[in-house]
Amino acid sequence: MSRISLGLDVGGTNMKAALLSPAGRLLGRAHWPTPGLGGLEGEILDELVDRIQDILTRHGVAAPKLAGLGLACAGLVDFKAGLISDSPNLRAWEGIELRRRLSSRLRCPVLLENDVNALAYGEWRLGAGRGTRHMLCLALGTGVGGGLILDGSLYRGYRGLGAELGHVTIDRTGRRCACGNRGCLEAYAGARQLSLAAGRALARGRRGHGALRRYLAGRAPTPARLSQAARAGNALARELLADLGRALGVAIASYVNIFAPERVILAGGVSRAGHFILDPARAEARSRLMNPAVQVLDLRLRALGDDGAALGAALLARERRP
Amino acid sequence: MSRISLGLDVGGTNMKAALLSPAGRLLGRAHWPTPGLGGLEGEILDELVDRIQDILTRHGVAAPKLAGLGLACAGLVDFKAGLISDSPNLRAWEGIELRRRLSSRLRCPVLLENDVNALAYGEWRLGAGRGTRHMLCLALGTGVGGGLILDGSLYRGYRGLGAELGHVTIDRTGRRCACGNRGCLEAYAGARQLSLAAGRALARGRRGHGALRRYLAGRAPTPARLSQAARAGNALARELLADLGRALGVAIASYVNIFAPERVILAGGVSRAGHFILDPARAEARSRLMNPAVQVLDLRLRALGDDGAALGAALLARERRP
Repeated sequence: MSRISLGLDVGGTNMKAALLSPAGRLLGRAHWPTPGLGGLEGEILDELVDRIQDILTRHGVAAPKLAGLGLACAGLVDFKAGLISDSPNLRAWEGIELRRRLSSRLRCPVLLENDVNALAYGEWRLGAGRGTRHMLCLALGTGVGGGLILDGSLYRGYRGLGAELGHVTIDRTGRRCACGNRGCLEAYAGARQLSLAAGRALARGRRGHGALRRYLAGRAPTPARLSQAARAGNALARELLADLGRALGVAIASYVNIFAPERVILAGGVSRAGHFILDPARAEARSRLMNPAVQVLDLRLRALGDDGAALGAALLARERRP
Repeated sequence: MSRISLGLDVGGTNMKAALLSPAGRLLGRAHWPTPGLGGLEGEILDELVDRIQDILTRHGVAAPKLAGLGLACAGLVDFKAGLISDSPNLRAWEGIELRRRLSSRLRCPVLLENDVNALAYGEWRLGAGRGTRHMLCLALGTGVGGGLILDGSLYRGYRGLGAELGHVTIDRTGRRCACGNRGCLEAYAGARQLSLAAGRALARGRRGHGALRRYLAGRAPTPARLSQAARAGNALARELLADLGRALGVAIASYVNIFAPERVILAGGVSRAGHFILDPARAEARSRLMNPAVQVLDLRLRALGDDGAALGAALLARERRP
């Protein structure tokens, strides 16, 4: 039997696929718009099966020969039941028994996992976390997600609700967070918050706003553009990314005190800003550690680019039987 | 072979012992001043062995028949090497190969563990945490310690440095903590900080200070006296304990988002204040949870009184072979 497995990273807009060899090599990838705009269960499943068959056919693999199909999904995943129980970005998918129905259609083992858990697992096994037993991963996307590898396995918490690392309070009287709390890490370190902070800095005329305004030339201050501006030498863009990095550093010091991880991985789109966030995060965390002489602070960027979650899902699907 | 085991809870001033039956019943207890004032390795070991022999003889158990001897020690314990590597309160004990030397003197298996880890384990197996797979324990002593039971086992982190739950930042620009950081939970929720906060409230004439001053009648505002004053109806004492509870609640909401534990246990001397801290902690945490309809917030007081760490050490010693 082939040990090839397939991972899908299902987001609210796009879906990415990664085909994984038995040795852990990326054999192929694809991406499509996420099915489900119609919102009908049958259509979602049909379209999903078609896409999967496409990529398998292209690589000469028959679905029943797959060692596993893993779906990494944004939102709250019921790992045991094999369905999405709550996802603002995948409302039409909620409650569909994806594991059961896909495995009967494709005749291969299917596994569902939260996307950031899958990402953490992928980076741990094939990417920036290799060789560790205790590792945590922060996914800096629109919001801030988290994944935990503890004592050599993926940690889910009771009913899979754990690892919401973006929702630790770093400032109890601070900014309102989308989750309803005040002062969460996410309120300082997500892409949405970065753009908002840039907008405020421009509106208030923060030092360097003229140069950044000229750089943007009317375009919105997205994380990608702020990173480009920072690389081009723009001081305000650098300062905004450093603010984000420092907020990360506060939380990372707490995580190191809590978990004593061997490594912390930064992933997600915002992590493309690289050392503009990594350096201030490291400095801030170091200044806050209990015992920096003994504690490990090994903070790195992701190694698998945008394929981490799909690869992690492919790995989990061939390794785990829920 | 007898499955009786013995646990010692070694603090900077006192040492407590608990003798545990095979069925998990407390057969006997004892407490003494902690050996080591002389600071000589031989003296510490001799005195320790004498004390252990005393309690064993009293209960008719020969040391070589013990299923295990567990030492729960304040500070950083090298679990694998079986010694204390760093402990401000047990300086004279640091570096002594306690596991090796005690097991050769007493001819029974010996295990060393951090005291709050042992406490968490004791409460998990015999106390307020029974029946859970994911549980965390906060020990409100002079400082704030933490212990984690994750996926049904004690979590230590890399080199045993983890679970410092008192050192999560809840207010990044807040109070200085003894650890060097700013705004740690411990800076708001330890016994030392509670007494300092009470002193400040009295000095600044915070509302109700006259009544509290009369209640204290010149005695220091220790946590025990503040709890008594609260029970006697003193409004300022209640408010000070509620402040502490609210700080705990901020951190507990973060822990629930991070770990999704089934239960959170409050232990340590300060937890004697009971509902005066429990109620405000619960209300604060609930107001901050991501999804209180789904998340579990089961916050309880310890069930083993002051014996938790000794009992946990006794259990670990008979169950684990490092």
